[in-house]
Amino acid sequence: MTAPPDPSSDRPLVGVIMGSQSDWSTLCHAWEVLGTLGVPAERRIVSAHRTPQRLVEYATQAKERGLRVIIAGAGGAAHLPGMVAAMTTVPVLGVPVESRALSGLDSLLSIVQMPGGVPVGTLAIGKAGAINAALLAAAILAPDLPEVEAALVAWREAQTRAVAEIPLDEA
Amino acid sequence: MTAPPDPSSDRPLVGVIMGSQSDWSTLCHAWEVLGTLGVPAERRIVSAHRTPQRLVEYATQAKERGLRVIIAGAGGAAHLPGMVAAMTTVPVLGVPVESRALSGLDSLLSIVQMPGGVPVGTLAIGKAGAINAALLAAAILAPDLPEVEAALVAWREAQTRAVAEIPLDEA
Amino acid sequence: MTAPPDPSSDRPLVGVIMGSQSDWSTLCHAWEVLGTLGVPAERRIVSAHRTPQRLVEYATQAKERGLRVIIAGAGGAAHLPGMVAAMTTVPVLGVPVESRALSGLDSLLSIVQMPGGVPVGTLAIGKAGAINAALLAAAILAPDLPEVEAALVAWREAQTRAVAEIPLDEA
Amino acid sequence: MTAPPDPSSDRPLVGVIMGSQSDWSTLCHAWEVLGTLGVPAERRIVSAHRTPQRLVEYATQAKERGLRVIIAGAGGAAHLPGMVAAMTTVPVLGVPVESRALSGLDSLLSIVQMPGGVPVGTLAIGKAGAINAALLAAAILAPDLPEVEAALVAWREAQTRAVAEIPLDEA
Amino acid sequence: MTAPPDPSSDRPLVGVIMGSQSDWSTLCHAWEVLGTLGVPAERRIVSAHRTPQRLVEYATQAKERGLRVIIAGAGGAAHLPGMVAAMTTVPVLGVPVESRALSGLDSLLSIVQMPGGVPVGTLAIGKAGAINAALLAAAILAPDLPEVEAALVAWREAQTRAVAEIPLDEA
Amino acid sequence: MTAPPDPSSDRPLVGVIMGSQSDWSTLCHAWEVLGTLGVPAERRIVSAHRTPQRLVEYATQAKERGLRVIIAGAGGAAHLPGMVAAMTTVPVLGVPVESRALSGLDSLLSIVQMPGGVPVGTLAIGKAGAINAALLAAAILAPDLPEVEAALVAWREAQTRAVAEIPLDEA
Amino acid sequence: MTAPPDPSSDRPLVGVIMGSQSDWSTLCHAWEVLGTLGVPAERRIVSAHRTPQRLVEYATQAKERGLRVIIAGAGGAAHLPGMVAAMTTVPVLGVPVESRALSGLDSLLSIVQMPGGVPVGTLAIGKAGAINAALLAAAILAPDLPEVEAALVAWREAQTRAVAEIPLDEA
Amino acid sequence: MTAPPDPSSDRPLVGVIMGSQSDWSTLCHAWEVLGTLGVPAERRIVSAHRTPQRLVEYATQAKERGLRVIIAGAGGAAHLPGMVAAMTTVPVLGVPVESRALSGLDSLLSIVQMPGGVPVGTLAIGKAGAINAALLAAAILAPDLPEVEAALVAWREAQTRAVAEIPLDEA
Repeated sequence: MTAPPDPSSDRPLVGVIMGSQSDWSTLCHAWEVLGTLGVPAERRIVSAHRTPQRLVEYATQAKERGLRVIIAGAGGAAHLPGMVAAMTTVPVLGVPVESRALSGLDSLLSIVQMPGGVPVGTLAIGKAGAINAALLAAAILAPDLPEVEAALVAWREAQTRAVAEIPLDEA
Repeated sequence: MTAPPDPSSDRPLVGVIMGSQSDWSTLCHAWEVLGTLGVPAERRIVSAHRTPQRLVEYATQAKERGLRVIIAGAGGAAHLPGMVAAMTTVPVLGVPVESRALSGLDSLLSIVQMPGGVPVGTLAIGKAGAINAALLAAAILAPDLPEVEAALVAWREAQTRAVAEIPLDEA
Repeated sequence: MTAPPDPSSDRPLVGVIMGSQSDWSTLCHAWEVLGTLGVPAERRIVSAHRTPQRLVEYATQAKERGLRVIIAGAGGAAHLPGMVAAMTTVPVLGVPVESRALSGLDSLLSIVQMPGGVPVGTLAIGKAGAINAALLAAAILAPDLPEVEAALVAWREAQTRAVAEIPLDEA
Repeated sequence: MTAPPDPSSDRPLVGVIMGSQSDWSTLCHAWEVLGTLGVPAERRIVSAHRTPQRLVEYATQAKERGLRVIIAGAGGAAHLPGMVAAMTTVPVLGVPVESRALSGLDSLLSIVQMPGGVPVGTLAIGKAGAINAALLAAAILAPDLPEVEAALVAWREAQTRAVAEIPLDEA
Repeated sequence: MTAPPDPSSDRPLVGVIMGSQSDWSTLCHAWEVLGTLGVPAERRIVSAHRTPQRLVEYATQAKERGLRVIIAGAGGAAHLPGMVAAMTTVPVLGVPVESRALSGLDSLLSIVQMPGGVPVGTLAIGKAGAINAALLAAAILAPDLPEVEAALVAWREAQTRAVAEIPLDEA
Repeated sequence: MTAPPDPSSDRPLVGVIMGSQSDWSTLCHAWEVLGTLGVPAERRIVSAHRTPQRLVEYATQAKERGLRVIIAGAGGAAHLPGMVAAMTTVPVLGVPVESRALSGLDSLLSIVQMPGGVPVGTLAIGKAGAINAALLAAAILAPDLPEVEAALVAWREAQTRAVAEIPLDEA
Repeated sequence: MTAPPDPSSDRPLVGVIMGSQSDWSTLCHAWEVLGTLGVPAERRIVSAHRTPQRLVEYATQAKERGLRVIIAGAGGAAHLPGMVAAMTTVPVLGVPVESRALSGLDSLLSIVQMPGGVPVGTLAIGKAGAINAALLAAAILAPDLPEVEAALVAWREAQTRAVAEIPLDEA
Repeated sequence: MTAPPDPSSDRPLVGVIMGSQSDWSTLCHAWEVLGTLGVPAERRIVSAHRTPQRLVEYATQAKERGLRVIIAGAGGAAHLPGMVAAMTTVPVLGVPVESRALSGLDSLLSIVQMPGGVPVGTLAIGKAGAINAALLAAAILAPDLPEVEAALVAWREAQTRAVAEIPLDEA
């Protein structure tokens, strides 16, 4: 299996940010899907709690820098997605990272239960959520990017084709 | 207070769907925000469980009908958002409706915990989630609709201005 | 220990379906019990989210194909049992597969909390639920299939006999 | 609206049992649906904890008395469905009654998490679960009772037709 | 370390029962404490679901057989303690065994949430609960058994003395 | 209906204690059952948090004062039952009082999850638990108090007789 | 009963902040206790999501403005306490406000589960937590403010004295 | 990496206490941070349940012994922090230790849900909470200890600097 293309771009449309290096093992799945679908992106560690100033800068500059979607992942008392959303109208997608003691239930509630006025589109806890954040970002961009649209449709069709008819006994 | 403009349109960009009439008291808040922001929309009852054929038709025709975002609300074992997302690449935003016994925790988990491959951007349980689904839909459309962009920015600024400095004792 | 008989049949009375290959390690326990009890069955992967068309075909053809019970297992935002039940009056038994982050609590609530009108008879999370789905399917069929009735009664009696009087210290 | 027909019969096929009089306000919804579908039934209070002997008698005699399905509802530490299932191979459907402090989560887990070997097909907490238990009982009986089959199909079709297209604002 | 004395007696005052052999790895801790405290006891596997008749016999004969306390452990939909308590006035102490998917939360709620009228004194999930069930049984018997009283007081004092002043770094 | 006899006694065998006056509306149900069964008792407010010295005195003097069982109720971070149990070998029964935000789940876990070494026999959340604490206290005392034994047996039999055969429709 | 003194001061040592006006009905209890104890304070609405810039200003200026403790209350995805703590070393005490759907469990987890590096001392959900935040703030300040120390000790002693010995039946 | 300085002092300002030796693997993280920040401290095992008298002595003497903050960690039905807080006005910070069955949710609720009147400032479950308890203790002491203030500010700045810009793929 060849590695998926790197989506890194100096004119990114999607920013993939996370609260710490340890979140990358989850968020890398978003990164891979963005690469596969040909969505230009960037990745950053932006900690709401340890680098609040970086958070402010990233969020407030997101629109003028041309970002169209921000994927933000964090765990525990996960404030990153909501705080970014508080400082930009660029759509923010939140990925709850699985936490040690509470398995990501804390991450999920901290991200999804935003008050009316500041939305975060929240995906599932962990790897599935990271993959889906990338797919949703691509779907948001698709109307303006025909090649992403095509890649997304192809990805979904391939996914459907890959489902076997009969379950196999494991060897 | 005057009622917000009706977002109804015969060329809707956003479809607001829900599992039953009883969900409307939640989803109407999405409808009002769409009206306020000038986003052309439609509203439908589409029950995953009671009208599965209508579900299939709505989801599979969404893209060709020109919908750009689908807001889907449901409660309990809430399958509507995920099943719509399974049959279209139009971005689906899910609103967990507060359920009687479990207060919407069942709705939330049924909507947000989608497997990798089929994303639903999930908002908060209840009214806050409905409002935010509309705001997120507007943010997704904003790059292509300058007047929605302007309305959204104005809405957010008005919201910020409306926050008083000092809490008031209730009379 | 010899393997239990394979329940596979081209005139199946019970359909065992699941959302993905990974669910088979749970659902295989239903399959084994069906084999032991002599219930003719079939097994299929039917993903509500990745193969929605297959879902529609399977559910809507179930009755005319002669299925008398459908056992459906899925995990996370588990929509398969409920969506099948929405499209057939054949009794549907749901098996919540243990999920990674939330240990199957999401699977359970997604399956059991169906709205009034579309029933899914839900069993326990995981292997116990899979075994019990097969036993319940056999019990449903027993009045019309004397040999299944006899096998079921024998199975239950053997189970009772197998319970030791005194717990044993592990070596 | 006329009351639904009373399903009471001296040759019942479905037994509707519950742990206490207070559960009747939930289980009556199963009773009504059975009446509507023309399923002959009986209703009893059988408390696992306060009348354990009655429980033993009811469960052990169920099959010879001709019962084809038992619908058992209880709340809190709800042992009735599982204990009946332990003493008969007649299919048992469990309805978790909403409890005061924990809203039926205790009822649900006490009913659904049965060990492998003794199945209880569990429905949703409260009224929805009671309705669905009756529908599932009817579906189990339908292959042998053409008029129940017809009534069930008609009920489901009527339910589908009753779903409005457009949500209505409340007056 | 020498093994604790075996509490087995043909005139037991405490019955230690459990739903299956697999529960013994938890309940053996109760057994050991009973042995240490010199409380005559017996141990049995009594499955509420797989051996309901044995359950009835054990519970209804407990008082005449001279049992003064019954310690009952079970997991998942744990009905054993409550069903025994339904059929005797001998005090029943319940030990929730840690379950696979839900970590014993289901066991706990199934045991502790008994309706008014039939008490089960419930201990903690798992090993701690098993130890404490034995200590509580000894405390119940102590007024009539001076040597158990003395052993219990000594056990508690030894426990207190065993607590170090300063935590030690692990080597 | 006449009020049940007052169990107050200056030679109490059971102490009913609670963390605050507001817990009395729950614990009064234990008091009533003790009165009905003729168990001599006393009632006190003993707050673990607001009157820790009273707690120490009550617990350390319990045995010499002749108490045979202590029923302790508290809500939220409910430390009273466990702290009393830490300072006496008199059996302690804990009643989790329903709390405002978390409905007594916090009370339950704070009481039942005691570490190995210090047992609290925990009953259900709220009124049912209070009734059952009194019944369990009576059952513990019954071997030494024939009149309590007789009253307890009569109470249980009356309870069984009071269960109607058929549920009644509410007027 | 006279109203407690107003703690408002232009040289406040404690800042009481909250996410919205609706939180005041909870936080006012902190305010009252601060007034009773004579702790100079200020109160502000600072919404992490709707007024992020105000949040930055408040948090970054807190220390130089002389604040010694910040009490921050918020509900749902409650980010205010943690984000303030991210931008100051002034001790932050968090009060989870009871939320509509999830009763403050979301608020609690969003506040308390902070990652290592940025502490928030969290109190109970709702009114009790607000009272305790004020008491803890006073305890933190007491070593430097003898009159607050004295008031705090007196408050605690009065609280102890106010606990009645015997619970009273309600009239 | 050199070990952090030992904060042990015979004139400690912070007492780090825990319910058992097994909690030290969590609380040692508080100890290390106190050492790094130069806060004089002591560490003790004080079990609320096994050594209640030691608890009383520790808590009632804390103020006169000069302690300014007490960090108390415990798991399960964790009563140590709240009981210490009941007997002193020295600020108490609670660290919920991760428990076996319920992952520390029981510990958290037992510590944080204190009734109004007796505060415990609660940190996150496990290691993160232990680290943060030390940081919060340092922040409380900082105004009176310039060198701790300086160390705390330096610690926080170093933490911010240590956050990389770009996540790294693991080798």
